[in-house]
Amino acid sequence: MSEEISIERLVEQFEQLPGIGPKSAERIAFHILERMSREAVDVMSKVIREAKEKITFCPVCQNLTTKTPCDICSSERRDRSTICVVESPEDVKAIEGTNEYNGLYHVLHGALSPSEGISPEDIKIKELVERLSDGAVKEVIMATNPTVNGTATAVYISRLISPLGVKVTRIAHGVPVGSGLEYADKITLIKALEGRQLI
Amino acid sequence: MSEEISIERLVEQFEQLPGIGPKSAERIAFHILERMSREAVDVMSKVIREAKEKITFCPVCQNLTTKTPCDICSSERRDRSTICVVESPEDVKAIEGTNEYNGLYHVLHGALSPSEGISPEDIKIKELVERLSDGAVKEVIMATNPTVNGTATAVYISRLISPLGVKVTRIAHGVPVGSGLEYADKITLIKALEGRQLI
Repeated sequence: MSEEISIERLVEQFEQLPGIGPKSAERIAFHILERMSREAVDVMSKVIREAKEKITFCPVCQNLTTKTPCDICSSERRDRSTICVVESPEDVKAIEGTNEYNGLYHVLHGALSPSEGISPEDIKIKELVERLSDGAVKEVIMATNPTVNGTATAVYISRLISPLGVKVTRIAHGVPVGSGLEYADKITLIKALEGRQLI
Repeated sequence: MSEEISIERLVEQFEQLPGIGPKSAERIAFHILERMSREAVDVMSKVIREAKEKITFCPVCQNLTTKTPCDICSSERRDRSTICVVESPEDVKAIEGTNEYNGLYHVLHGALSPSEGISPEDIKIKELVERLSDGAVKEVIMATNPTVNGTATAVYISRLISPLGVKVTRIAHGVPVGSGLEYADKITLIKALEGRQLI
């Protein structure tokens, strides 16, 4: 490292992280320098470096993993005929948290966004199409976010892979369970009405 | 490191930092693993370790510094007859930002707090008293925070060092400049009235 070490350089490291503004970054830097033990800081430094070194993308589903392929892709107990497509590893974690889904996943690492210049080759769509080539997958569940970009991505992928003979579905959108109608935004309410079912 | 590396271990490192909850820590961890380059992460890891190693407390004023003594304590252009006492290094930064103060500082690294068990020997009071022994310091400005603990600390130190013949002052508290009276809390307004001056 050629540049000299300084409090400012430490602050900069945290400023580049999501959700951390200049004030929070400064507060974190001072916390590290003022209050944390040397040992705790060494562990933090080492864990960050080792995590980046050892946690990579699964070559099959593209989720983050320390194994190749990942635990889910290599599990014998998962239903290999269904793939749930999500935007990020956090989404896999959220769905796994329900303990209700037993299929495989595919992590796109983003969504299509013409305004941000994110086109199909920038996210893991090619890798998804490759996984469908042997005909073992019967259903692809599009669980991208219910945003403009997430929905456009779901529609794009659906058009791309439907001709391969695979069923493509989209997760339901509506009023969150336990929440009041008055807190739901207009588009969520429209989706909830459109998706109504017989009781 | 005996423990195996995992996303959870990376998340834990950020959870221990101030202002970062479990959700933000997870978001940061995924950002590092998904979006940052290996090089950028190595720099982050190294800067954190080196900063903790090389940025220490100035033996005189107790502020954070890479030099011994720090730039302010060793400067020939600072007024050595005045010491401004603050709770944290951030406070030094804030006051230096005004470009209006030319004396020295003393960083307590906290404030007295009976409820949290922080007593005089837990903060850098002894080190302040030592600095007053040669009689060169004529005024000590108490700029601890205008909180219960900060004010109690100012009063405690004032009683401790006044007998040494040094003048002890407290920074003014009142309605912030540019802010409306209606936004000021009751105690700030009381302080503003108490501290009124002839115009």
